[in-house]
Amino acid sequence: MQYLPNSIQDLINHFAKLPGIGPKTASRLTYYLLTKPDQEVVDFGQTMANLKTNLQYCANCHNYAEQKLCNICSNPKRDPNIICVIEQPLDVVAIEKTSFSGLYHILHGALAPIEGIGPEHLTLDNLRQRIADNPIEEIVIATNPSLEGEATAIYIQNMFKNNQIKITRLAQGLPIGADLEYADEITLSKAFEGRK
Amino acid sequence: MQYLPNSIQDLINHFAKLPGIGPKTASRLTYYLLTKPDQEVVDFGQTMANLKTNLQYCANCHNYAEQKLCNICSNPKRDPNIICVIEQPLDVVAIEKTSFSGLYHILHGALAPIEGIGPEHLTLDNLRQRIADNPIEEIVIATNPSLEGEATAIYIQNMFKNNQIKITRLAQGLPIGADLEYADEITLSKAFEGRK
Repeated sequence: MQYLPNSIQDLINHFAKLPGIGPKTASRLTYYLLTKPDQEVVDFGQTMANLKTNLQYCANCHNYAEQKLCNICSNPKRDPNIICVIEQPLDVVAIEKTSFSGLYHILHGALAPIEGIGPEHLTLDNLRQRIADNPIEEIVIATNPSLEGEATAIYIQNMFKNNQIKITRLAQGLPIGADLEYADEITLSKAFEGRK
Repeated sequence: MQYLPNSIQDLINHFAKLPGIGPKTASRLTYYLLTKPDQEVVDFGQTMANLKTNLQYCANCHNYAEQKLCNICSNPKRDPNIICVIEQPLDVVAIEKTSFSGLYHILHGALAPIEGIGPEHLTLDNLRQRIADNPIEEIVIATNPSLEGEATAIYIQNMFKNNQIKITRLAQGLPIGADLEYADEITLSKAFEGRK
């Protein structure tokens, strides 16, 4: 779109690289910002430019942190006896909406041998060390219910099979509000297995 | 979400203010950027922060421009005898996908007496002056097919009723790919009126 000013075209191009945002939405968002006060747009841009400046990985759980420890690991109200193991930092945002009050361990991925992602690419050694250094009661494995997530869950179960730690896995079954007739057979089988 | 680093929370808040982007998408976009190379995120942020720095309104058509005249008004290949009048700069992006090769005039709004938007709030005086200064053959009114857009179209028609200029309006009718049985009665009536 050569008829657009460069600054507008450049921002459209950046927006269009975001997941789920096509060229039309990218244009709409850019033109929306053009109608906003200068200071608001500058703030948004500077917040983005500075996003990663002061971030590091929490030494304990490997989530994003501004200090050596993240806000969760450094919170004395959290229960250090239970660790929830997840694939991505974004999963914390989802789980924090539940009543879970333990700590996390972020793997930053899942085992995917075909893509060349082995145990050494995840924070599994850190998890092993963390469990060795700190007495804990339970590990909740909350990897995704996908092939890679399942493989990672089994790997972690094996890692700690000689420890005295309770290892659990998030329940699999029907999501709330779902319609039985639309459930796929694997979900339905898991729901049967997990009946109580 | 007090457990998030400030820089992450701030960016989520900014994203969530954009139209059509809820808190979940805002989080997803922010965490997506966290996985991108530092320089890419900084570029995106700086592009946004600088978006409005060098922009002005084109002296001729009132679109966004980096010079006194926008890229379209200063392009000698465009036909200066036909002016397409539109409500918003974003409408240019839509119309540039057609074969239209004339110039534009951006009103920056539409008449909406209830909201207190009268002719003096639009670039109508500039349009009048522009037509007086430059001999043109046709004005294509391409305001939205809404109440405000229609009112604005009629106002412009009246403005130039004593001029020797051909005034046209974008055709109204069935959109391509539409199903007759789902068309609303006003669209269908317009399609009948406009039959040829």
